[in-house]
Amino acid sequence: MIIVMKPNAKKESIDNILRLIKEKGLDVHISAGKEVTIIGVIGDKSKLSCCNLEIAEDVDHILPVTESYKLANKKFHPEPTIVKVGNTTIGGDELCVMSGPCAVESAHQVLETAIAIKKSGATILRGGAYKPRTSPYSFQGLEEEGLKYMKEAREATGLAVVCEVTSLAAIEAAVKYVDMLQIGARNMQNFYLLKEAGKTGLPVLLKRGLAATIEDWLNASEYIISEGNPNVVLCERGIRTFETATRNTLDISAVPVIKHKSHLPIIVDPSHATGVRRYIAPLAKCAIAAGADGLMIETHPDPATALSDGPQSLTFDQFDELCNELRPYAKLAGKRF
Amino acid sequence: MIIVMKPNAKKESIDNILRLIKEKGLDVHISAGKEVTIIGVIGDKSKLSCCNLEIAEDVDHILPVTESYKLANKKFHPEPTIVKVGNTTIGGDELCVMSGPCAVESAHQVLETAIAIKKSGATILRGGAYKPRTSPYSFQGLEEEGLKYMKEAREATGLAVVCEVTSLAAIEAAVKYVDMLQIGARNMQNFYLLKEAGKTGLPVLLKRGLAATIEDWLNASEYIISEGNPNVVLCERGIRTFETATRNTLDISAVPVIKHKSHLPIIVDPSHATGVRRYIAPLAKCAIAAGADGLMIETHPDPATALSDGPQSLTFDQFDELCNELRPYAKLAGKRF
Amino acid sequence: MIIVMKPNAKKESIDNILRLIKEKGLDVHISAGKEVTIIGVIGDKSKLSCCNLEIAEDVDHILPVTESYKLANKKFHPEPTIVKVGNTTIGGDELCVMSGPCAVESAHQVLETAIAIKKSGATILRGGAYKPRTSPYSFQGLEEEGLKYMKEAREATGLAVVCEVTSLAAIEAAVKYVDMLQIGARNMQNFYLLKEAGKTGLPVLLKRGLAATIEDWLNASEYIISEGNPNVVLCERGIRTFETATRNTLDISAVPVIKHKSHLPIIVDPSHATGVRRYIAPLAKCAIAAGADGLMIETHPDPATALSDGPQSLTFDQFDELCNELRPYAKLAGKRF
Amino acid sequence: MIIVMKPNAKKESIDNILRLIKEKGLDVHISAGKEVTIIGVIGDKSKLSCCNLEIAEDVDHILPVTESYKLANKKFHPEPTIVKVGNTTIGGDELCVMSGPCAVESAHQVLETAIAIKKSGATILRGGAYKPRTSPYSFQGLEEEGLKYMKEAREATGLAVVCEVTSLAAIEAAVKYVDMLQIGARNMQNFYLLKEAGKTGLPVLLKRGLAATIEDWLNASEYIISEGNPNVVLCERGIRTFETATRNTLDISAVPVIKHKSHLPIIVDPSHATGVRRYIAPLAKCAIAAGADGLMIETHPDPATALSDGPQSLTFDQFDELCNELRPYAKLAGKRF
Repeated sequence: MIIVMKPNAKKESIDNILRLIKEKGLDVHISAGKEVTIIGVIGDKSKLSCCNLEIAEDVDHILPVTESYKLANKKFHPEPTIVKVGNTTIGGDELCVMSGPCAVESAHQVLETAIAIKKSGATILRGGAYKPRTSPYSFQGLEEEGLKYMKEAREATGLAVVCEVTSLAAIEAAVKYVDMLQIGARNMQNFYLLKEAGKTGLPVLLKRGLAATIEDWLNASEYIISEGNPNVVLCERGIRTFETATRNTLDISAVPVIKHKSHLPIIVDPSHATGVRRYIAPLAKCAIAAGADGLMIETHPDPATALSDGPQSLTFDQFDELCNELRPYAKLAGKRF
Repeated sequence: MIIVMKPNAKKESIDNILRLIKEKGLDVHISAGKEVTIIGVIGDKSKLSCCNLEIAEDVDHILPVTESYKLANKKFHPEPTIVKVGNTTIGGDELCVMSGPCAVESAHQVLETAIAIKKSGATILRGGAYKPRTSPYSFQGLEEEGLKYMKEAREATGLAVVCEVTSLAAIEAAVKYVDMLQIGARNMQNFYLLKEAGKTGLPVLLKRGLAATIEDWLNASEYIISEGNPNVVLCERGIRTFETATRNTLDISAVPVIKHKSHLPIIVDPSHATGVRRYIAPLAKCAIAAGADGLMIETHPDPATALSDGPQSLTFDQFDELCNELRPYAKLAGKRF
Repeated sequence: MIIVMKPNAKKESIDNILRLIKEKGLDVHISAGKEVTIIGVIGDKSKLSCCNLEIAEDVDHILPVTESYKLANKKFHPEPTIVKVGNTTIGGDELCVMSGPCAVESAHQVLETAIAIKKSGATILRGGAYKPRTSPYSFQGLEEEGLKYMKEAREATGLAVVCEVTSLAAIEAAVKYVDMLQIGARNMQNFYLLKEAGKTGLPVLLKRGLAATIEDWLNASEYIISEGNPNVVLCERGIRTFETATRNTLDISAVPVIKHKSHLPIIVDPSHATGVRRYIAPLAKCAIAAGADGLMIETHPDPATALSDGPQSLTFDQFDELCNELRPYAKLAGKRF
Repeated sequence: MIIVMKPNAKKESIDNILRLIKEKGLDVHISAGKEVTIIGVIGDKSKLSCCNLEIAEDVDHILPVTESYKLANKKFHPEPTIVKVGNTTIGGDELCVMSGPCAVESAHQVLETAIAIKKSGATILRGGAYKPRTSPYSFQGLEEEGLKYMKEAREATGLAVVCEVTSLAAIEAAVKYVDMLQIGARNMQNFYLLKEAGKTGLPVLLKRGLAATIEDWLNASEYIISEGNPNVVLCERGIRTFETATRNTLDISAVPVIKHKSHLPIIVDPSHATGVRRYIAPLAKCAIAAGADGLMIETHPDPATALSDGPQSLTFDQFDELCNELRPYAKLAGKRF
């Protein structure tokens, strides 16, 4: 942490800062430049958390030097994390493709989907039983009944199963049925939910919030990991910008940035990022080329009658064709698929 | 709802759309232009929710005509809503000033604050007992103990009390102690929490999410109101943009936009919007000039030692001076303060 | 400038950095923390401009300590700049109201407008003769003929006149007719144009770009001032965000931020910021309450037939009523109007 | 164009709108729904440009139905445009790689670069002679002298040459030396410059503005094409968002969106999009996977001493390695490279 003083800061103001820092048992380095004096703080900065140095006399501003996340930080854990979900892994040399409907609608729909996507190469079945919808007048999900259908499909096909959870009650239900919990974009900073998900020990798929910086996102993962659960997979699904040609703006750079800053695996969800079916295939290829560990792609037996997000869902034939197109990209990226 | 067909859409494609709409018992108007044919749908569009017309053959795009929120919409409820909280009201001819610390730290701190802000003219005491913090290593709040201190301060001063809730457990605790529940920006689309807050019947202060459009925000309020609880107060607290000179960007236009589109009261929180103490006074004046029904402003007995958000907190003297400066602005805006 | 090294940076890497800096005649301070070593550079950093230290071995990142703009920086020029335009001033104790049509359409329109706005209290007539329009199929302006009409209106009323310039040719024409040049939002980083405007010595109204940070904006002003022309007035007119309820998002915080960081005057244009007539009055009051030195507000004799931006233009009666409403706000802010 | 009336709009208000539209010789369709009446306008909407219907009595809002750009619109020109530059083409079955330094520094630097990048497979040499820099204290370019060095490198190697132009004077100089003009992001809405570039007949590389929507961008291209010059190549180089881990946010979705909406070729510039060398290779692969027609990548003989943007420049060895990595991606995408 570096404290930049105002030009012509008074000696007493500087001495006051030094005193405050030393009182906490920390060390300092002073550097008096031509324009300004800067003070570097050495030691465990968390001890300073109740010293609001920014408003001390003659302080101009404060610069952080190190990242606020530790457990998710590659600097301190250089080895990549590989998360095991059912019989598949994410973060290693497999390309993990998750697929299924936005919303679980019926046992038949889910089973039919599971069989189809497995044939095409997916290893994890997704499906929403608790749906966070912008309007209360949209379909809100089948809740626990939906989870049961997911489990049945898992038993029938051997696919692993991931479902979004939106409350403690949903977590308590989900742990009985699923292999992986999903925290959606709108709950990425629902820290209470993150901690509860962390406590289950189940792998957690953490989607990026629409307004979350990569640093916010890694800090959110830190809430899960600090509960003793290192099995976090990040999912880039678009951020909110001024562009309206796509529903959100896929921040594809997040893939190499995460690979540089963190040891956690990262997958990409082109379905939610664009909201438009015709853009899913090119962006799925992009994701692999950028180094992603997997993909989440929505499919539906009959997108035209889907209760949620039909326009961005692929039919089984379209999904199968896409998987075939993705194979050579996976190979180039050194991933099995 | 208007369906815009592609140029040269086939007659069968248009007939197919007409059939789908009529099957749902809705009426249509066709308008064949030089470039494109458009189809207007007449009647209750919610019947079409499972028809994903966007992906039907030859459809170019779909334009919504009416807003998705109904209960919060001024078109259908032209009279302004006035929310009663303790002995004060929000949305009528009073300017409601809420103040207090970001985080509750001790019984003494809260009581001292309550006495000071009451003297300056505030009528609602704020204070966080459940703190959503970006990093798990920051202070997380005193939880129920904090709520108790808030209630004691209420009993001692007669001020009403508002606290943020971040989970069902927090709501269940808070209803025993507070006059108003706050849903924070990070939980604005935690729809589960919105519904639970709605069920309590207590007034709800709904902060705008960092990436929420005004339409998203009004849809979020709809979750509360549709539980039979019309006592919603909106709070603009800045949105996330590319500008970094302030912590967030205060969207002051949201005040007149909400006044135009909704009957709900709206207040402004310049403390969180800017994150910088020196910008609070000019933006508080702005809020009143823009037509806001109230303000939320952070105060602390000793900002330099605050456990949370010290740099944006005012001392009691600064707060008192600000209230004196705000009075003539309130008068100009036709509000008592 | 501070250079933050990677954890476990090699001694040779650090020595290499030190050598590079010392070769340029600059001094350093090293601070070896527990996690990382940081190196502070002391002296004239412009000497380092061709040393791309960011890509030197073992460098993690570089933190700037001081702002890149100097001439516009309040730290080095604490006295506020007062810009004289015709018989009026901007930045002193007057509230300067500029008004007129988006586009100059005829001599009659401009003269009629000048007479009306002068009666209401405006002191500068605005009017676009060179129009930067998003689509080439929209009206592009009367060019030099429009400038002549502006000058005629100036002579008839004594108002000062400001016109946007979009090219060197436009500047060369405008200097013959106007009192102040306007650089529009879309040209804020047209550095060639900024320099040419600077050379004229005329006061320059510099609108903020839609994607410009406040630092970018002050750097743009630096291009004008460094040509020996200190007469720059900044104009906040909204930035581009995800919100679509208003055309742009008025960043009202920019007013106190600029007042804190720079000595340049700042005015606000609520017409372009919102694009909607009904939001202009509340935001004009806001601007004054936030400390702005003036306003730019579009008026038109008959907005319903305006060739450009009719929906955001006020009629003369609406403008007169607005000016009357603004007077007590100006008085509260200590400004004559 | 569709006019949505307010609920309970008066009959006279509707009649007034109908009269206004019919006066312009246009036809209408009225659709009276349960909540609102909507009016569709049929015919050439440009005739309505001076009717500001938005502010007519009882109008709620207006919805555009068709895009504002025509010449760049795939709906009206379904065949892809192939632009010939020197001996190479963009938009056909070649992958066009442009490379070179951010700023031209010397004849030697440019020639050395041209020889190296040609060997690796690039076909167009880029190099900035007129540099738009955020701060006036940064290196501003060698201007015409720089253009000469570019032409010498062209003659020595046979590569085509592209240079940015920032003023009419720069265009007049550049036409003597280069094969393609570049309009930079900061000048994307410098409509005067777009028209002048259009008039030269030379191919134009049009970079996307930092705050430009895809629709704004296509409208900007329309300024060039409407001067009779169809040789426009678009270049996605990142937009401005709240994320700061990369300099800008590469909007990779723009590639398939442009391919869907326009017939113009599109290339991607990962160097400026990220500003960080280590992210260039993954994003270059992405661009090809997304369907881009080419790439622009910065190289420099010695990035550590580059006068501009060194941290994002590749060395010749890094560039050669990248080209080798890109070849199988180009092949998968059906492009020769």
